[in-house]
Amino acid sequence: MTLRMTRRTFVKGPPLVAASLATGATDLPAAAQDRVLPSWNDTAARQRIIDFIKATTTDGGEGYVAPADRIAIFDNDGTLWSEQPFYIQLGFMLDRVKTLAPEHPEWKTKEPFASILAGDLKGLAKGGEKGIVEVGMATHAGMTTDEFNKIVTDWFATAGHPKTGRLYTDMAYLPMRELLDYLRANDFKTYIVSGGGVEFMRTITEKVYGIPPEQVVGSMIATEYAIIDGLPVLRRLPKIDFVDDGPGKPAGINKFIGRKPIFVAGNSDGDYEMMRWVTAANGPNFAMLIHHTDGDREYAYDRQSAFGKLDKALDEAGRRNWLVVDMKSDWKKIFALE
Amino acid sequence: MTLRMTRRTFVKGPPLVAASLATGATDLPAAAQDRVLPSWNDTAARQRIIDFIKATTTDGGEGYVAPADRIAIFDNDGTLWSEQPFYIQLGFMLDRVKTLAPEHPEWKTKEPFASILAGDLKGLAKGGEKGIVEVGMATHAGMTTDEFNKIVTDWFATAGHPKTGRLYTDMAYLPMRELLDYLRANDFKTYIVSGGGVEFMRTITEKVYGIPPEQVVGSMIATEYAIIDGLPVLRRLPKIDFVDDGPGKPAGINKFIGRKPIFVAGNSDGDYEMMRWVTAANGPNFAMLIHHTDGDREYAYDRQSAFGKLDKALDEAGRRNWLVVDMKSDWKKIFALE
Repeated sequence: MTLRMTRRTFVKGPPLVAASLATGATDLPAAAQDRVLPSWNDTAARQRIIDFIKATTTDGGEGYVAPADRIAIFDNDGTLWSEQPFYIQLGFMLDRVKTLAPEHPEWKTKEPFASILAGDLKGLAKGGEKGIVEVGMATHAGMTTDEFNKIVTDWFATAGHPKTGRLYTDMAYLPMRELLDYLRANDFKTYIVSGGGVEFMRTITEKVYGIPPEQVVGSMIATEYAIIDGLPVLRRLPKIDFVDDGPGKPAGINKFIGRKPIFVAGNSDGDYEMMRWVTAANGPNFAMLIHHTDGDREYAYDRQSAFGKLDKALDEAGRRNWLVVDMKSDWKKIFALE
Repeated sequence: MTLRMTRRTFVKGPPLVAASLATGATDLPAAAQDRVLPSWNDTAARQRIIDFIKATTTDGGEGYVAPADRIAIFDNDGTLWSEQPFYIQLGFMLDRVKTLAPEHPEWKTKEPFASILAGDLKGLAKGGEKGIVEVGMATHAGMTTDEFNKIVTDWFATAGHPKTGRLYTDMAYLPMRELLDYLRANDFKTYIVSGGGVEFMRTITEKVYGIPPEQVVGSMIATEYAIIDGLPVLRRLPKIDFVDDGPGKPAGINKFIGRKPIFVAGNSDGDYEMMRWVTAANGPNFAMLIHHTDGDREYAYDRQSAFGKLDKALDEAGRRNWLVVDMKSDWKKIFALE
């Protein structure tokens, strides 16, 4: 026993932080506990989250959920990081078109590439979804998965957000990173379920959110096994395989995760169906919507937005008992670097 | 400290089992260690597996792999459980056709259903893959995901293997279950990557292999979000969404897991491409083929088999340094119940 007792003795300090994370610890006096969700103000929103986690992890309680079933899913754009003035992945597409332009002289006169090269986003918008898909294929397909991974990784290392100039990876919401940590400390398995491209996101989710590649569900293009120079690779094809948005989200969750989550966070009508699906379950469940109400510290938008439109889901949040998080009043701090 | 010391005191016995699992423990004298992979004979196959696990988990060694990258993937049919005299999922389809027959009087004269109802598997085989797909759609689609889950769960609870009469879930290979445990004890994350239907397998993988639903990759049909009686559900459609076999396996791994495994086990040419893809990596990697050589205790088959044909992969195993496991000589015991 000597060795084990010695090891115990060297464990530093009381297990207060771990204990408070694991229980929600709302029974301790405020001064005595390491405050969970520190970037959240002391509002009803924070309390509802803590109460739910506490209920699901209290063994013997009526809201208890076994650890294996504690699956939590998060939309990405507008829920975990900024989606204004445009989706970050669109920022990648715009930069990539500029990088590739010398190899494509025809783009100077071909829409929507010509608009992008001229910095005319309204011109790009005129081409609608068809134009965006065309740009997506030109920038996301035609290389191997390893090559694409490197292109995206290199881009994230230097590309700056158009308004703040910060790295895009610094546009993640600190309160949500804290929520992810808090859920994991309570044995929740955290997933991203996003309309964004799965291989695009996977390059940074571990670093930014602590979410490994295998816990990212997203839209994807098809790949094809091929032997190139004697080595087996996967080649990315200009063909959409799966759109993980709207009604595609519950289908994507079923496909990739294979069981129903009990916690869901979104911010737009693209999350509506998965929120309905999760909250229709018989057992304990929790849904939250991030409402972008802070035009000073971030952006204020909902019903009229081109990116992350929040309309129907906001109308129904009350009667469905979905928590609406008001960024302006519920969040003490939005970005780690602000 | 009192409570924690008391808890420690109640931990029973020395941590020898855990320690030997975690290190491979080949340095300990044989009598002192809890023998890992107990149903494997002391052959070169067992030693190669242990050596690889030991190398990947020895911090500072040249073969070391960080825990997050320790992804191990297993084919299912013929690798983790029996696939003779036919795939277990085909057994489900045959039984299901009989169960549904009263609702489908037209099946009495319609192939391939008529052959199935007459117990004529050769007649079914005559219809080829097209016939099998038709039966698959008739038995796997048209219900919600929850309903399908219940149908399969109920079937597994009572259906018996045609030769042994045992539950199909008892047709899992004990040495492979031990290998899964051994890998997990060494911080490997274990996945199934199978040509079988993902929602079919997910009903039993946790119980049979200790693999949760979210770590099962397989073939799938499309699902569609729908509101039925006011509740959101996913309806299974008679439409193939993804075939996770042959060149589809590396694509499936990339799609669902998003990083390259370092350990792969298969048993047929349907596993060839994923084995090539995994073993073409620069870092440490390991591939093994289960060779069905034991006609007495299980089945003996390879190049001519209708299910689990092993031909090209067997020819190339030597020069690609893939371990070929000889079931007859390498496995002390095949099934837990034998």
